[in-house]
Amino acid sequence: MKKMNWTEYYSEHTKYRKEVEAGELEQYIGETVQIHGMVYKIRKMSDFAFVLLRTKRSIVQCIYSREYSTFPLEQLQEESAVRMTAKVIAEERSRMGYELQLLSAEVLSLPEEISPIVINNKKVDTSLENLLNYRPVTLRNEKERAVFKLQEGICRAFREFLYKEGFTEIHTPKIVAEGAEGGANIFKLDYFGKQAYLAQSPQFYKQMMVGVFERVFEIAPVFRAEKHDTARHLNEYTSVDFEMGFIESFEEIMQMETGMLAFTMQYLQMHYELELALLKVQLPEITSIPAVKFMEAKELVAKAYQREIRDVSDFEPEEEKLLCELIKKKTGSEFVFVTHYPSAKRPFYAKECGENPEETLSFDLLFRGLEVTTGGQRIHNYREQVEKMERRGMKVEAFESYLMMHKAGMPPHGGLGLGLERLTGRLLGQENVRYAALFPRDMNRVTP
Amino acid sequence: MKKMNWTEYYSEHTKYRKEVEAGELEQYIGETVQIHGMVYKIRKMSDFAFVLLRTKRSIVQCIYSREYSTFPLEQLQEESAVRMTAKVIAEERSRMGYELQLLSAEVLSLPEEISPIVINNKKVDTSLENLLNYRPVTLRNEKERAVFKLQEGICRAFREFLYKEGFTEIHTPKIVAEGAEGGANIFKLDYFGKQAYLAQSPQFYKQMMVGVFERVFEIAPVFRAEKHDTARHLNEYTSVDFEMGFIESFEEIMQMETGMLAFTMQYLQMHYELELALLKVQLPEITSIPAVKFMEAKELVAKAYQREIRDVSDFEPEEEKLLCELIKKKTGSEFVFVTHYPSAKRPFYAKECGENPEETLSFDLLFRGLEVTTGGQRIHNYREQVEKMERRGMKVEAFESYLMMHKAGMPPHGGLGLGLERLTGRLLGQENVRYAALFPRDMNRVTP
Repeated sequence: MKKMNWTEYYSEHTKYRKEVEAGELEQYIGETVQIHGMVYKIRKMSDFAFVLLRTKRSIVQCIYSREYSTFPLEQLQEESAVRMTAKVIAEERSRMGYELQLLSAEVLSLPEEISPIVINNKKVDTSLENLLNYRPVTLRNEKERAVFKLQEGICRAFREFLYKEGFTEIHTPKIVAEGAEGGANIFKLDYFGKQAYLAQSPQFYKQMMVGVFERVFEIAPVFRAEKHDTARHLNEYTSVDFEMGFIESFEEIMQMETGMLAFTMQYLQMHYELELALLKVQLPEITSIPAVKFMEAKELVAKAYQREIRDVSDFEPEEEKLLCELIKKKTGSEFVFVTHYPSAKRPFYAKECGENPEETLSFDLLFRGLEVTTGGQRIHNYREQVEKMERRGMKVEAFESYLMMHKAGMPPHGGLGLGLERLTGRLLGQENVRYAALFPRDMNRVTP
Repeated sequence: MKKMNWTEYYSEHTKYRKEVEAGELEQYIGETVQIHGMVYKIRKMSDFAFVLLRTKRSIVQCIYSREYSTFPLEQLQEESAVRMTAKVIAEERSRMGYELQLLSAEVLSLPEEISPIVINNKKVDTSLENLLNYRPVTLRNEKERAVFKLQEGICRAFREFLYKEGFTEIHTPKIVAEGAEGGANIFKLDYFGKQAYLAQSPQFYKQMMVGVFERVFEIAPVFRAEKHDTARHLNEYTSVDFEMGFIESFEEIMQMETGMLAFTMQYLQMHYELELALLKVQLPEITSIPAVKFMEAKELVAKAYQREIRDVSDFEPEEEKLLCELIKKKTGSEFVFVTHYPSAKRPFYAKECGENPEETLSFDLLFRGLEVTTGGQRIHNYREQVEKMERRGMKVEAFESYLMMHKAGMPPHGGLGLGLERLTGRLLGQENVRYAALFPRDMNRVTP
């Protein structure tokens, strides 16, 4: 096969338009270029007008003036698609250090009507409800869309890190015969006359794949039929899952996550500076992440804030917030691992502590007051797993294909699941996780 | 934030095991190393034994001999997880150019019982049905898993290419209120007492996102309730979708796909040589891909193979095969674009030909006899879209949030959806698309 790079290929085989990308404009100062985009905002001044052009990633400031613009300004409308020729001139007062003097314009399409919501101000000034109802339009706001460009960056960084660490990317089914997390929080589905479910997590499959590739990951949707209508819950979200074999302790999983998060913050700083600046993001410093045992954490919070411990088997949301506050004060870290959750609150595949079977070799990661990850070591021994299922009164036969891997032999292993929207939301200091989902799904919302 | 690369970070903050990865072994010839993996196969010879170790990506040949091995061979079982010390020695007869002399072994876990299917031969010698029933185990076969390592490579290459071309990666919901492709082939779901559906494609959402980022892509599961039990159909599959704005013709989408595929073949050749060799893959040469109009293609096949044209609105599977055969003979290309599909067979959002509204500005891509991609230009004008929906007798109100984008203004745009499993399957010359899905879903299968 002839080796050719794509750019050569593209110019050799296509008559692709020669247009300038917004990111390259700086190289063209003093020159005339062709550029396209959507008209984001027109601001008329006394004898000229600012025309802001929304391109793939940035808003480009253009100047319309009768002096050099050869078309009537009225030809342009906000949210029309245009192709223009313009001269790039240095301009210190512009955010980019240059602006475009519009010469000619070709209007490719016009909007049918003006959006009922103003989208081209600094922020979209409306309720969350409205923001979501009009998502196809409100996402066109510069800051709204920057959230999702950053979210892309998080995924890219995760993948790059995991590839380097020898993980294989997998695609596991979302229609399943058994829920991995148990309980009633599962969507039911009629599957050609049989009952099936939507996967709550890729748990069973990623474990199976540890027997195949040793280290695997998946970034994909998961579905939880939780009847929680809170600022932290989505009924469909993007889960970042990894699972790794040959661990000596569950702390290795935490180490891997620490590395992944540290790498990701650096990656964003290097490749997503534009969005970080626009959204004024304070990236957390990650050198190491403190870890505290579940019961100790409960007691720490109770003592520091004079609170009663009401639930000894789980955290209250308020406790998570206070714990993060406390840890930040004590250590400076905005992340904290909480380890050794009670066995009663963890799923049947969680591995218990050798010395104390009431506790599991598990952890949550809290970030700025919210749980963003759940992880832990899994049971790899067949008998140990079957016995635990029997103790819990589960129907072992129903998990035949899951247990097939334990029977066939598995290395000691564990992993985690991270909620992409939660991490994004905390990173950006958003009050509601719905802000970090393009088209969020909650109990009351399946549109847009 | 202190900048530190991950390796420094990792060695500074963790006491991570110093073990050698299989890929690095060549650098250690003459040295003693520690390595871990699953025992894949033990082959006893008269006075020594071959022990094949399955590591993350490759099978490493080890030699057990009483001369230097300090443990009884009986300690090792196939599919046990082991950590071993070994001396790396050059060995020409070994596939890798070296082998490992086993010194000591630590057994981390043992299988409960021997798998009912032999998985450590060159190929798993069983029916497709059995292969899939025992997937958690049969995927451990060297060749079976190589399929999915290659599939990872395809996704990596796609993403890398699309990032470079200015596409933004998105995550769109899979629980939806309306099907994008119409028809009865849609899974229904009880969503908190209301009826919802599983997304047949991210079509509506990726179009909306063109209004936001101009170019977007997604690699994610889609769901089709098709009652087709064939070698080409899956009821859940991984769809590679991209959508791009500011196109001048639908051929630009085909050009982009040609570039993406050409880049991908090069990428596989560079980064997945191991798997290509193991599976004896013949990568297709892609310089340019011939395109032929739908009706012409039908007539070409009819004439060349003396066949009657029975269905003037769609291809029969046999015709797709014959067309590919013919095109390969004529041009050498294993890919062929078929363009201008009849309007009647394309969804309501397909843009029609200016001169002939019976035809759409659309295409399929066929590869080695099978359709792997469907794409085309979409209607971007609000009135044009509403009129087409009305002509088709659709309830326009039900698509309010979809039409919101047309109303607000959209650039001319189009895109495509590619079936990852179909492409993988054709690349590897597999007879059934189920071989290219980790855990395939068909009318009769939701497990494992």
